[in-house]
Amino acid sequence: MARDALHFPDADRAFLEPSLPSQDGSTPQPDLPFTTLTFATSLDSSLSLAPGIRTALSGPQSKAMTHYLRSRHDGILIGVGTAVADDPGLNCRIAGVGGYGGEGLNGQPRPIVIDPCLKWDFSAESKLFQMCREGRGRAPWIVTTVKEAPAEKDALIKAYGGQFITMDIPSSDSGIHCMDWCQLLRVLRMNGLRSVMIEGGAQIINSLLQPPYMTLIDRVILTIAPTWLGQGGVVVSPARRLDDDGKPMSAARLKNVQWHPFGEDVVLCGEVTI
Amino acid sequence: MARDALHFPDADRAFLEPSLPSQDGSTPQPDLPFTTLTFATSLDSSLSLAPGIRTALSGPQSKAMTHYLRSRHDGILIGVGTAVADDPGLNCRIAGVGGYGGEGLNGQPRPIVIDPCLKWDFSAESKLFQMCREGRGRAPWIVTTVKEAPAEKDALIKAYGGQFITMDIPSSDSGIHCMDWCQLLRVLRMNGLRSVMIEGGAQIINSLLQPPYMTLIDRVILTIAPTWLGQGGVVVSPARRLDDDGKPMSAARLKNVQWHPFGEDVVLCGEVTI
Repeated sequence: MARDALHFPDADRAFLEPSLPSQDGSTPQPDLPFTTLTFATSLDSSLSLAPGIRTALSGPQSKAMTHYLRSRHDGILIGVGTAVADDPGLNCRIAGVGGYGGEGLNGQPRPIVIDPCLKWDFSAESKLFQMCREGRGRAPWIVTTVKEAPAEKDALIKAYGGQFITMDIPSSDSGIHCMDWCQLLRVLRMNGLRSVMIEGGAQIINSLLQPPYMTLIDRVILTIAPTWLGQGGVVVSPARRLDDDGKPMSAARLKNVQWHPFGEDVVLCGEVTI
Repeated sequence: MARDALHFPDADRAFLEPSLPSQDGSTPQPDLPFTTLTFATSLDSSLSLAPGIRTALSGPQSKAMTHYLRSRHDGILIGVGTAVADDPGLNCRIAGVGGYGGEGLNGQPRPIVIDPCLKWDFSAESKLFQMCREGRGRAPWIVTTVKEAPAEKDALIKAYGGQFITMDIPSSDSGIHCMDWCQLLRVLRMNGLRSVMIEGGAQIINSLLQPPYMTLIDRVILTIAPTWLGQGGVVVSPARRLDDDGKPMSAARLKNVQWHPFGEDVVLCGEVTI
C-alpha cells in the first residue's frame, strides 16, 4: 500500500452515497455528465485567505472525503487560478484505487483545467505530471480558447495521454471569460466522462451558482470549517439576483438538504432549487 | 396560553444546555456577564439581502431556538441599525415565560440597543413598547454617547421601566463608533445582568469578532441556512488579521465545536479560540 494512501470509513461513505453518481454509469440526462459541485469554505464563505494563498481550512477527515469523492467521479475540474496557485496533484489517494493498492489507474479521475488563455505554465515537473509518471494519476485535459497550443506543451500533454480541448468561451465587455457550462459539460460527456466533480476556485463556483447554469448541478457537497478567515479572502458568493420587481432575492437555494458533522467541520449535501 | 407562543422541544434543549449560562447565575468572571454571540447567516455569511431589508433566512425551528435562548439570558443586545430596520419586539415568546403562560415578566430578557447618536426614533407605538404594555416584554436600555436624551424620549422610556445609559464610545478617524466591549459588558453586569445574548447586526458582530474583544465571548451559537443570498448582502466577516510576519491569518477560530442539524439549517455551538 502506498505510504500516503487515505482511508475513508464505510460509516461516512453511507452518508454520501445518495448524493453520488450511480455506480452503473447512468446519468440523469443522456448528453450531460452527473455534475457535483464541491468545495470547502470558512464560516465567512472564503476558500482562502487571499488569491494564490493555499489555506488549510478543513480537517483530515474532510480531506479523505474529497479523495473518496474523486474516486467516484470520472473527472475533476478546476480553474486555472487554482492550478497556478496550488500546483495540485489532482489525483485520488484513497486506498484501493490505481496507484494506491489498486490496478492500473482504476478509480483515478481525469483532471480538467479551465485555462482560456493558457496561463498555466506547466512542465514535466508539475505535480500532476509527477503523479502520472508514478502511475498515480491521469494526465489533464486543458480547456482553452487558444486554437493552437505551444508545440512543446502539446507534445508533453499528449505523451502522458492528456489533451487540449479548444472551445469558444465568450468574453464579457471587461474581458472576463464567461464559460458556457452547458456546452462544456456536453463536450466532457462526448469525451466519455459520465460524472464530473467541480472543485473551484471561487470564479468557477460563482459562475456556476447563477442562472441558467445552476440547473446543471446535480449535487452540491460543501464542507464548512468553524473559522472566520476575515475580510479580503477569496469568497464564494454568487452574483446578486433580482426578482421581477427589481428587488434583491436569494441567489441560490438548496433543497433535500443533509448536514453531517464531520470532525470539527460540517458537510452539507443538497440539490440546487430551480 | 398566548396564541403566538413558541415551543422548543426538550430534545433540542439538551443539545444547547452545555453552551448556556449556568442556571444558578454564576458567571465565568465576576465583573462580566456570561456573553453569547448568536445570529443566523446564509452560506455566504450574509445576515440579510441588503441593509434595512429583513430577510427570512432560517426555518421555524431556528426561530423557536432563538426565543428559547432569549429565555436563558438576562439581556439581549442589538445595534441601532437592526432596531431601525426591523422594529423588533425583542421579547421572548417561549411558552411558559411571563406573558406567554408564565408569571409577571419571568424569563423575559432586558433589551439593550446600542445607539451612539440616538438615531432610533422610537415611540410608544414601536413594537417593543407594545410588548411592554401587553406584559410580554421589558423596556429597553439604550446605550448612547448623548449626555442628555430628548425629554419626551427619556420620559417614555422611564415610564416603561427602561433607561438611557450614557457611555463614552470612542470614534475612529472616519467617524465610526468603536465600542469598548469590555467597558460596556462591565456596565451591564453592574446594572445586574448576569448573562447577555448579542444578536447583531453585522457591525456589532464584526466588531466583537476581533482582538481584543473576542475573548469576551463565552459562546458562539450560529445558525446557517442552506441558501446563498448573493453579493451585496450584509456580511459577517471580521476585519483582516495579520500574523507577526505581516501575512494574513484566520481572523477567528472556534474550538469545542458542536454541529446540530436542525430542520434545513444547522446550528453551530463553539468557543472562540484565544
